Amino acid sequence: MPYEDPADGVVIAADVLHEWTNRIVRQAGTPDDIAADVTDVLLSADLRGVASHGTGRLSMYIALVEAGLTDPVARPERVGGTAVISHWDGRNGWGHHGARVVMDDVIDRAASLGLAAAVVKHANHYGIAGWYAMRAAERGLIGMTVTNSTPLVVPTRGRTRQLGTNPIAVAAPAGRFGMFVLDMATSVVNWGRLQVAARRGLDVAPGVAVDSTGRMTTSPGGGLDGGALLPLGSFEGTASYKGYGLALVVDLLSGVLGDANFGPWVLPFSLEGGPSNLGQFFLAIDPDSIAPGFEQRLETLIDAIVTSPIAPDAEGPILYPGQPEAEREARQRRDGLVLDRRHLQYLVELGDRLAMPFPEVAPYTPG
Amino acid sequence: MPYEDPADGVVIAADVLHEWTNRIVRQAGTPDDIAADVTDVLLSADLRGVASHGTGRLSMYIALVEAGLTDPVARPERVGGTAVISHWDGRNGWGHHGARVVMDDVIDRAASLGLAAAVVKHANHYGIAGWYAMRAAERGLIGMTVTNSTPLVVPTRGRTRQLGTNPIAVAAPAGRFGMFVLDMATSVVNWGRLQVAARRGLDVAPGVAVDSTGRMTTSPGGGLDGGALLPLGSFEGTASYKGYGLALVVDLLSGVLGDANFGPWVLPFSLEGGPSNLGQFFLAIDPDSIAPGFEQRLETLIDAIVTSPIAPDAEGPILYPGQPEAEREARQRRDGLVLDRRHLQYLVELGDRLAMPFPEVAPYTPG
Repeated sequence: MPYEDPADGVVIAADVLHEWTNRIVRQAGTPDDIAADVTDVLLSADLRGVASHGTGRLSMYIALVEAGLTDPVARPERVGGTAVISHWDGRNGWGHHGARVVMDDVIDRAASLGLAAAVVKHANHYGIAGWYAMRAAERGLIGMTVTNSTPLVVPTRGRTRQLGTNPIAVAAPAGRFGMFVLDMATSVVNWGRLQVAARRGLDVAPGVAVDSTGRMTTSPGGGLDGGALLPLGSFEGTASYKGYGLALVVDLLSGVLGDANFGPWVLPFSLEGGPSNLGQFFLAIDPDSIAPGFEQRLETLIDAIVTSPIAPDAEGPILYPGQPEAEREARQRRDGLVLDRRHLQYLVELGDRLAMPFPEVAPYTPG
Repeated sequence: MPYEDPADGVVIAADVLHEWTNRIVRQAGTPDDIAADVTDVLLSADLRGVASHGTGRLSMYIALVEAGLTDPVARPERVGGTAVISHWDGRNGWGHHGARVVMDDVIDRAASLGLAAAVVKHANHYGIAGWYAMRAAERGLIGMTVTNSTPLVVPTRGRTRQLGTNPIAVAAPAGRFGMFVLDMATSVVNWGRLQVAARRGLDVAPGVAVDSTGRMTTSPGGGLDGGALLPLGSFEGTASYKGYGLALVVDLLSGVLGDANFGPWVLPFSLEGGPSNLGQFFLAIDPDSIAPGFEQRLETLIDAIVTSPIAPDAEGPILYPGQPEAEREARQRRDGLVLDRRHLQYLVELGDRLAMPFPEVAPYTPG
């Protein structure tokens, strides 16, 4: 779900932020085509309202390149596997570019074989997982990707960070609903939600995080400061072992299958410790290889569900996965992108440091 | 997770129950090889402690055959697809047999191609999804299956049954840990948990079910009587839209992709309305096609997690997916299968009706 707009945000045109971000990425020594991929994925996250995964992380990506922990010119290389499932080495390049190249290869193969997949080792953080799945859906295919990530989540009954928020993304063309896009961490929330709650002085819901002693906390600071996230399901009585199990499945398909780092050995997305060596998994299916009319059937399913009766305590209408993000993107493409003040501050500081001043922004007026 | 042993249960040797069940299935007009598959899957559910999915459903399966809603002699037929992802017609035969045949075909193809999958239409209920995934893991592969099912789950913000408990099962070989087996409904609990709680006079946890007005209830009867199950995540504040999204992904890969029934159009597992026409999806990956040592790496990951520090309020040690079921199976193979009195009563009545008296049982003494 997109983040809520900040109360005291600023607005910038999406194409202006895109152009500035692209210059910053190229300035770090990134070839133009690689920088184009990085910029597209980061801007897509901002446009879709996933503020934790877009240009808000640009400073860290640039710092990783400057520290020699990400190789800005490296391109992924196919190192093995079969025609149906290939094995790639990301060669520690930009994660966004490597993942785009591998996903496109999977899409091309699936378009001829009906189904294809790939596993990547020595990968870096690729931003929003949904972007790669959507790339398949834009071509009329079902797309899927999972990646392991920095350990931040406790296993059920555990109290230390053992698994990443290990997202699962699935996208498919959905007729007049545009696109079905499920892009979810296998924890209840991702780390960015704790950070945003802490910044805004808000509590988090019970069942989201534990503190450093392993006890449930509603203070985002308690989670951030040596605590951890809970897997989807929150508590054992409400089946947190399912979220924990899904996080393991993600790691099994990415880090373990791909011969990358996995579990507690994935290195943090930070300047400490060396390259992350993430594992990533991509898959695409051509529904026309099975039966015509997939897109219309998915439209029929979504229509039935979103028009079904609403619960008395519902917070709004029934939505389908990807709907709020698509609506946010449409609004922000038209009215400009909304950044919170801290996000703006990061970008202004980065621009000043690299002598590429951040463009003018306007105050955000909600509604 | 396995059901707890009933307080006043009975014990029967697994091979005795297997032999009797097999005779009952054959008596309904099922050829021997098909009956063997059905019996193996049902007994596996009972042995693993998944009491809701084993011989406790035998009466209903037999009634469906007797009513002409399941064709006991039908065999699945490959009707399309590609060498990598094939499309099958289950021809409304026994779901357990159809799924076993299709999974074996997927396993054989994956062993040569690295990855293969299949989608089935006109399928019937196949019992525990994990059984088919485990069949791949026994051959050293990663196995996966999903199936749609009778609508029993509300979408987030909804109040009516729109989606099945739509399980996801993934299995993989795990070295000295035997096998990793995640076999989970995408709702918080499955329907059987409500039924068992109602039988035993127990409440269910908050966040498991809603009543017929769409309000959360802790009374299992409230859910059973016109209510519904909540998706994994329980509430919107703890990300129930993720469980809802996963249920949609399951339907998208099974019913929608396979051109079977989907969503609210899946017919109940009952004598009303006609064949269910379920959709099912199967996938297998040969990890050796990517990199040697998969099984050892998965063992290393599981070892790190289950030996990590325990939370202060933990209900027991950290487990890995499939561990409690495997332990239950080992015990019940040795000491006999424990059935609750209601389960026994169903089987005795079925045996009397078909003039195949149910074998002798002994009272169950816990410990």
